[in-house]
Amino acid sequence: MTPPFDLPRLAPSTTTGLASIDQVWDLYRDELRAVEEQLVRSIDSSVPVINHTASYLFQSGGKRIRPLLLILSARLCSGHDSSEQETLLACAVELIHTATLLHDDVLDEAAIRRGHDTARLLWGNKASILVGDYLYTRAIDQVIQLGNREIETTLAAVCQKMIEGEMLQFSLHHNVNITENDCLTIIDNKTASLIATACTLGAILHDAPASQKTALGRFGRYLGLAFQLSDDALDYAAHPDKLGKTIGKDLYEGKITFPLLHLLSACQPDERIVVERIIGHGGEAPPQDSGAIIRLMEQYGSVSYALDRARRYAALAIEELTLFPPSSHRSALEIVADYVVSRDH
Amino acid sequence: MTPPFDLPRLAPSTTTGLASIDQVWDLYRDELRAVEEQLVRSIDSSVPVINHTASYLFQSGGKRIRPLLLILSARLCSGHDSSEQETLLACAVELIHTATLLHDDVLDEAAIRRGHDTARLLWGNKASILVGDYLYTRAIDQVIQLGNREIETTLAAVCQKMIEGEMLQFSLHHNVNITENDCLTIIDNKTASLIATACTLGAILHDAPASQKTALGRFGRYLGLAFQLSDDALDYAAHPDKLGKTIGKDLYEGKITFPLLHLLSACQPDERIVVERIIGHGGEAPPQDSGAIIRLMEQYGSVSYALDRARRYAALAIEELTLFPPSSHRSALEIVADYVVSRDH
Repeated sequence: MTPPFDLPRLAPSTTTGLASIDQVWDLYRDELRAVEEQLVRSIDSSVPVINHTASYLFQSGGKRIRPLLLILSARLCSGHDSSEQETLLACAVELIHTATLLHDDVLDEAAIRRGHDTARLLWGNKASILVGDYLYTRAIDQVIQLGNREIETTLAAVCQKMIEGEMLQFSLHHNVNITENDCLTIIDNKTASLIATACTLGAILHDAPASQKTALGRFGRYLGLAFQLSDDALDYAAHPDKLGKTIGKDLYEGKITFPLLHLLSACQPDERIVVERIIGHGGEAPPQDSGAIIRLMEQYGSVSYALDRARRYAALAIEELTLFPPSSHRSALEIVADYVVSRDH
Repeated sequence: MTPPFDLPRLAPSTTTGLASIDQVWDLYRDELRAVEEQLVRSIDSSVPVINHTASYLFQSGGKRIRPLLLILSARLCSGHDSSEQETLLACAVELIHTATLLHDDVLDEAAIRRGHDTARLLWGNKASILVGDYLYTRAIDQVIQLGNREIETTLAAVCQKMIEGEMLQFSLHHNVNITENDCLTIIDNKTASLIATACTLGAILHDAPASQKTALGRFGRYLGLAFQLSDDALDYAAHPDKLGKTIGKDLYEGKITFPLLHLLSACQPDERIVVERIIGHGGEAPPQDSGAIIRLMEQYGSVSYALDRARRYAALAIEELTLFPPSSHRSALEIVADYVVSRDH
């Protein structure tokens, strides 16, 4: 299916020659490879199934956006080459992110993640819970090595925030009275907080001034909101082969996101009855129901609405970077902000 | 049902006047109350269901053995009155312990814990996973406040060990070829490691000499082995009202523990076929099957065998304390070691 919207890219950066996300991946290839090697080194359990499950997860893709953001933020604040500390911390953030994915997939009863079967489908919920716990401990272990109290408290706080976000989302499943504000709170806690932390940590690592920490934290937070709103929109629009997710997965899991919320408020009363009935079905809904929802969303522009909000958050993110003088690192961060609202189009 | 064995108590300490576990609870009542208050203070989530679930857990009993051991070990090494640091650390250890219980109950599909419905039965597996995660983050938060690298690394290592133990146990469910050594490795990782850590942390907190840290770590490890072996024995012997667990719960969950392992090796070949068939049934086994197992265990003395091992580990634990001069704290630790192998008789 063709997405029912056309998304203009933000203007490419003209000052540094960096114009695409592929160039960014390429420019920071060595740093990201170091993170990848550190991820592999982190997984050295004496229990084979832990290693198998964790290795599967790390080989199943993932763009390593959080490590990339941490490295870019660190460079923006110091200009130095990658240090071992950056690698350790970027790896710890990715370990925490992967742990939350494992537990979230159990909670959501998810079958597909990034186009692959989820770990819970391959090894069961029990292995997913334990390997998630294991990855948390590995992250903690790496963070402790840095011996930086501010980093430790920042990461402990964000873990708590993510769990609270997941719990809030879970408690509001199938609830059609959820507000946009509830939705944003969930996204802010579940997704934006860790992305913001990745950016802030880059600044903390190099003992940057408070203004830089704050600006990068805000950049990450806006970027995280843009990222998740875009993801939520794509759930009702993207071709399943492209994003590795089935269409209407959120509907199936009972999650009420921005496009669905927009549809509920924009549609006619008789249509709302139909939509609410389908939401109430959750995982029991027949496939034609998700087709009906998607057709209504096309009619009312619900996906475009969510994407527009995503783009506005991306623009706010980029605005925060004006504190820093132009550089390839700043351009790279701008391109990442562009990328998260223009994936798979 | 009456337990098919009679367990002599270890000789009471004669040097300090302390003779029973109740006197120990009484002597350290203020310290344990401070831990209890800290546990309540730790749970301050903005998400109500997290607070409800956690409060239920802390009000459902639990002897706070780990906090008690930490406080006793700390006193043994310093002789000082309780410090705020002891309270924080004892609370952190109990938070970690409670988090593992929550995740373990999901993994074991457990219905009863300490005589109460498990959290997973009341709020579901999903809340149990998330509240477990939440308690971990609260523990981390408190540990960070202490700013002691040795404490941080010790706790990170023990968390990893416990998870590996649970995973190992899970991977050996229903496996009748498990050895006593496998069983001990699981107990060592899952249970003894955190109890050993509670004791070691008391010593670390007061910067005790390495010999004292080692002795207290060994004391805790032996005590943990004694504790779990005793618990595994009681699973096939205790009255369900007394220990808050149903008889044969481990059998139901597919866990092969010392009494069952003893029975498998001691019984006749035709009986072994019956036992193996029942183990294979796991949760599907009808109630009369667990009755058949318990009768065979009485015949072959399998419960006594496990309890005897437990008592030997308790004796080894007490032996480690001879490094320290006699004191009420040392006597209290001895009484705890006695208590864990003589509960509910």
